[in-house]
Amino acid sequence: MTGRAVAIVGGATTKFGVRPLTWAELAQEVGAALFREVPALTTEDVDSLFVGAAEPERFAFQSHVAPLAAEQMGLRPHRIIQRTELACASGQSAIRSAYAAIASGLSDVAVAVGVEKMNLPSMAEANASMACVMDRAWDGPAGATAPPFFAMVAQRHMLEHGTTEEALAAVSEKNHRFANANPHSQFYEKTFSREKLLRLPVIAPPLRLGDCSSMTDGAAAVVLASEDHVRRYTRTPAWIRGTGQYSDFHNLANAGSLTEWPGLTRAAHEALGRAKIGIRDVDVAEVHDCFTISEIVEYEALGLCPPGQGGTFATDGRGDLGGDLVVNPRGGLLGCGHPLGATGVAQAVEVFRQLSGTAARPAENAEWALVHNLSGSANVHSVMVYQRGGAA
Amino acid sequence: MTGRAVAIVGGATTKFGVRPLTWAELAQEVGAALFREVPALTTEDVDSLFVGAAEPERFAFQSHVAPLAAEQMGLRPHRIIQRTELACASGQSAIRSAYAAIASGLSDVAVAVGVEKMNLPSMAEANASMACVMDRAWDGPAGATAPPFFAMVAQRHMLEHGTTEEALAAVSEKNHRFANANPHSQFYEKTFSREKLLRLPVIAPPLRLGDCSSMTDGAAAVVLASEDHVRRYTRTPAWIRGTGQYSDFHNLANAGSLTEWPGLTRAAHEALGRAKIGIRDVDVAEVHDCFTISEIVEYEALGLCPPGQGGTFATDGRGDLGGDLVVNPRGGLLGCGHPLGATGVAQAVEVFRQLSGTAARPAENAEWALVHNLSGSANVHSVMVYQRGGAA
Repeated sequence: MTGRAVAIVGGATTKFGVRPLTWAELAQEVGAALFREVPALTTEDVDSLFVGAAEPERFAFQSHVAPLAAEQMGLRPHRIIQRTELACASGQSAIRSAYAAIASGLSDVAVAVGVEKMNLPSMAEANASMACVMDRAWDGPAGATAPPFFAMVAQRHMLEHGTTEEALAAVSEKNHRFANANPHSQFYEKTFSREKLLRLPVIAPPLRLGDCSSMTDGAAAVVLASEDHVRRYTRTPAWIRGTGQYSDFHNLANAGSLTEWPGLTRAAHEALGRAKIGIRDVDVAEVHDCFTISEIVEYEALGLCPPGQGGTFATDGRGDLGGDLVVNPRGGLLGCGHPLGATGVAQAVEVFRQLSGTAARPAENAEWALVHNLSGSANVHSVMVYQRGGAA
Repeated sequence: MTGRAVAIVGGATTKFGVRPLTWAELAQEVGAALFREVPALTTEDVDSLFVGAAEPERFAFQSHVAPLAAEQMGLRPHRIIQRTELACASGQSAIRSAYAAIASGLSDVAVAVGVEKMNLPSMAEANASMACVMDRAWDGPAGATAPPFFAMVAQRHMLEHGTTEEALAAVSEKNHRFANANPHSQFYEKTFSREKLLRLPVIAPPLRLGDCSSMTDGAAAVVLASEDHVRRYTRTPAWIRGTGQYSDFHNLANAGSLTEWPGLTRAAHEALGRAKIGIRDVDVAEVHDCFTISEIVEYEALGLCPPGQGGTFATDGRGDLGGDLVVNPRGGLLGCGHPLGATGVAQAVEVFRQLSGTAARPAENAEWALVHNLSGSANVHSVMVYQRGGAA
């Protein structure tokens, strides 16, 4: 990586769930939490603000949300202010933008905040809005919204590789169990055994209710600082060592395969290459389990197991505590809920906690962490790699 | 500026106006134009894509537009892909993000594209969508959409400083005249004398039709490259020397003044300071004339004239060819139309042409250019400073 070294020096999230709050109130709540979590931070320190939000224009009928978030958080950004949008990866995009701004010298101390308000009085309206994340002109008329699309991925994976419903349930059980250690998760204190998960209603076959992440209200925020400002805020920074993205296609007709995600392989290769490590060096990973099948394909595309063996990787518990590495110790999108723009930032908050030794479900002696988000029809993949504390 | 030097090495726009094309088709059209304008550029060269778009979720019922633009332009970004949104300044935000990505070393050659499709079968729907650029919760119920807000600015400026309707018309006449040299402008070959402008219908008093920028479909794109890649594409790059933004407030009740825009003064000070020049060094400026009164307040906030004298600056022709500097030689938002996300990028295309000697209305011997965008209720100001060719 060229440019100045950049680290996350602290972060906070709101409670995720069905919250009786507006978009602006969620931003205010996470702002207050952030300043509590990072006591040395003052509003004057923050020169730049990056807001990750997927669809406030539809869910909250509010565009131009960056200055709204600034006002609610008590900030007056004087270097950079913007919103970044990349559907379900909007939060990670905000962090990447903050990274680039600081590395380039444009910013010294920045906040990246993700906010999404998805539960509306009319959930029909909310679900219709979700549909515009996919290709509206070509795929929309075919009914290809998120659950049917990922159901097709699961059906095809079962056909090609013999993946089972039990493997899907293994992913869901793990992530819901992890969420039970996270009081901010949507499904905190809800228990889901594999047997119970396999009896839940089918949403889009073979995906059942427990295979799908939920419509969630929530917000998350992190503080990023340049190498010469990090020590003012923490002794345990999480350094950003690599970033990669890849955009394959938009219209599903241009996708080469449902079950192979070469864009993720390329994005991870780019991010890991910049960090000068391999996937085997990663101790803890936050990956985009919008559906259980996503996490299974991601095991494969990340190179954690050979193609087709993601289901076995799940049933063998290789992504669990005591496995090859810990995957989604926060509880994932399945256990925490998935407020689109907040998810990527909440994953980074978990990485900061894992690498600073303050996580609720700590991976053992974690030095390297990887965060992955997909967006749309898994046509764009976004990866970041973090390293624990120490020198810049 | 720290980090690597970055320049714009070429750009293109579509025809602006009421276009019988979708959002995706506008992206395709500007992509084709860009590759014609920059013959040395290949699709493989472009590692990153930054998409400026204000409200595709409402105008086109399509979110996740970044990979849609990539597909339409024939690009497969493998470093960074994102959309940036800052309402009317979304286009400049895309360019700033590309700048930071390249300066930091994350990207070598990036495209920033702005696209907006605003003319819909139901213009009532389009106008309602425009309303969500302002603060919906507090200002919306008071009717504070863009025309009434800028009308209040004009009324107050008239009260405080004796600014006249003739001064407003002088701005409109200049920018429409400049647009007559730009075949891509919405009002190409439409002539507006000051007398004619003063007879047009009133939209929100004192603003008449000719005082307001229009609902416009259009797209614009630029190529940015790091100092070590610039020469592959052009001998006349436009170097980015400074950038500044400032975010004051969101809810209008928190605005200190209607007629003074200290956020613009601060953003320009930051951008000019990074470029190590003063406002008197600027030869050509593209400023955000969403309404005629905006350009008048901008003359003052940029320090081109004392507070209150922006009207006189306009009637004296000091922003015209042969004046202190040339303001909006492209034709401005008033003459070109204002496709929200495309505007900031189209301004950068004009700056590239001005500084490379290929502009239709060339400012004399221009070395320094400034671009300004405001967004929302003039609560956020965004400024960039460019320098002509020569060494990095």
